[in-house]
Amino acid sequence: MSIEIPEPNGSLMLAWQVRNRHVLLVGGGAVALSRIELLLQADAKVTVVAPKIDPTIEQYEKLGLLYKVHRRKFLKDDLKMYEGEASRKLDQFSGVDHFGPEEMEQIEQAVKQEQFALVLTAIDDKNLSKQIYYWCKAGRMQVNIADKPKQCDFYFGSVVRQGSIQIMISSNGKSPRLCHKLKHDKLEPLLASLDAKTAVDNLGKMRGELRHRVAPGEDTPTIKERMAWNTQVTDLFTIEEWGQFDDTALNRLLSFYPKVPQRQDIIVVPLENF
Amino acid sequence: MSIEIPEPNGSLMLAWQVRNRHVLLVGGGAVALSRIELLLQADAKVTVVAPKIDPTIEQYEKLGLLYKVHRRKFLKDDLKMYEGEASRKLDQFSGVDHFGPEEMEQIEQAVKQEQFALVLTAIDDKNLSKQIYYWCKAGRMQVNIADKPKQCDFYFGSVVRQGSIQIMISSNGKSPRLCHKLKHDKLEPLLASLDAKTAVDNLGKMRGELRHRVAPGEDTPTIKERMAWNTQVTDLFTIEEWGQFDDTALNRLLSFYPKVPQRQDIIVVPLENF
Repeated sequence: MSIEIPEPNGSLMLAWQVRNRHVLLVGGGAVALSRIELLLQADAKVTVVAPKIDPTIEQYEKLGLLYKVHRRKFLKDDLKMYEGEASRKLDQFSGVDHFGPEEMEQIEQAVKQEQFALVLTAIDDKNLSKQIYYWCKAGRMQVNIADKPKQCDFYFGSVVRQGSIQIMISSNGKSPRLCHKLKHDKLEPLLASLDAKTAVDNLGKMRGELRHRVAPGEDTPTIKERMAWNTQVTDLFTIEEWGQFDDTALNRLLSFYPKVPQRQDIIVVPLENF
Repeated sequence: MSIEIPEPNGSLMLAWQVRNRHVLLVGGGAVALSRIELLLQADAKVTVVAPKIDPTIEQYEKLGLLYKVHRRKFLKDDLKMYEGEASRKLDQFSGVDHFGPEEMEQIEQAVKQEQFALVLTAIDDKNLSKQIYYWCKAGRMQVNIADKPKQCDFYFGSVVRQGSIQIMISSNGKSPRLCHKLKHDKLEPLLASLDAKTAVDNLGKMRGELRHRVAPGEDTPTIKERMAWNTQVTDLFTIEEWGQFDDTALNRLLSFYPKVPQRQDIIVVPLENF
C-alpha cells in the first residue's frame, strides 16, 4: 500500500469561532486596527487596552462596535478582567466524571462571558510583550504577539471575503506582501468573476431545505443519504452555474430527491450553442 | 470621517502554529485521517486514541509520523496524559509579576511537552463527544468536535498548498462541498499557473538577504526602512515575474538598496514586444 506523505513545515489553517467571545487587544495603533477589522468580521467582543487610540478605532468605539476601550497602559490583571464566579468553579470541575446540565451551563458562562478566547498584542515594548506571552501561557491562554513569531500560538494572513466565503492566504511568514498581492491581484478578481457569494448562498439554501423539509431526520442512514445526494448534486454544476440559479431551479433540483438529477434536467442549453 | 464597517457573521481566519506541540485526536476513521493529514502538514505531535484505526493512519504510524496511537476507547484522563511537573507549577505562576529565564523555561516546557495545544474528536458517540467538549472547556483547552459546530472553538476548511503558500477556503458552514470545488476547480489551477511557490521562495530569500547581509540591524528606523523598501520592490513586479527570477536577478535588485529600482533596471523587454 502506497500513501502520500503530507508536506511538512506548514501551518494548521483554521477558521476560529469567536462570536460573542471576549478577545483582548493590547495596543491601539495601525496593527491593532487591522486586528480589530478581522475580529469584528468574526463578531468578537473586543476589549482594547492602550494609552493612545487610532482615530478609526475611536470611530468603531463610537459606533458601539467595541466591547470596551481602556485608555491606559496594560496591567497584568487585565488578562483576568472578566473572570468571576463561574471561572473560579472551573478548577473544581476537573474531577467531575460526568457533567449535568447545570455544570455545562456554568462552563458555558465561564467560557463565553468571563474568559478571553484570544489575547493579541500590537505594541512596541518588547519586554512587556514577552511578559504578556508568558502570563498567557501560564494561564493556558492563546496569544499572538505581533512581530514575534516565536511568541505566537497563531499567525494572521491576508483574507478575502465575499459573503459567507472567506479565503485566507498565508506564506508561513516568508512574504506577507506576496499574500497581499495574491489576494488583490488574483483572488479578489476571481471571486468577483464567479459570484461565489450567490453560489454558496444557493447551496446553503438547498442544504437547509433538504434537511428541514425534503428529507428530515437525524438518524445515521438519513444523514448519509442526504450528504451523498448533496455532494453529487453540488458537483453536477460549475460554481458559475450555482451563482446563477434562482429559487425555481433549486426547487426543481430538490424535487428529484432521493434521485440525482442530470444536468439537462435543470439546464436548458441555449439554441445558439448547438 | 467616514469608515467602512467590517462585514459580520464570519470567522477569524488563522494559521495555527502547532509545530512540536501535542495534539490529541479522538477517533480513527475517515474524518480522523483527514485531520491527521492537516496536522502533519503543520508538524504537530499527534496522539490518536481509538479502538479501530484506519489503514492509512496505521501506515502513518508505521512510518513514525505519529507521536502515539492508543488502540482503545477514550478515557477522561487522556486529556492530561502528558501533564507533569512543569504543568503543575503553572498555577503557582499566576501571582508572579515578572518572569525570569528559569520560570520562562518551565512554562515553555509545560506548553510544548505536557499540554495538548488542541483536542479534536471525530467519533459517532454524541454523548461522549459532548462530555469531551465540556471537559476541555473546564480545563481551558481548545477543541473541535466534528459535526457539532456549537462545540467547536474552530472549524476546518479546504486547504490548497504550494510550498510555503497555504490557502484555506471556508464557507462558514454553508457548503463545504463548494469550498472543495473552489479549491479543486479554481485555486489549484490558479496556483499551478502562477508558480507561486518559486515567487514566495524568491521573496523570502530577498527578505532574508536584506535583513542579514544588505541592511542588518534591529533598531526601529532600520526595520522601517527595510520594510518600506521590501513592500515597494515586491509590488514592482507581478507574481508571475517573481516566479521567474533567479539569484542573479535577486542580487541585482538588492544592489539598489536603499534606492528602489525601476522595472526596466531588472526586466529587459524582449524586442518582439516593441
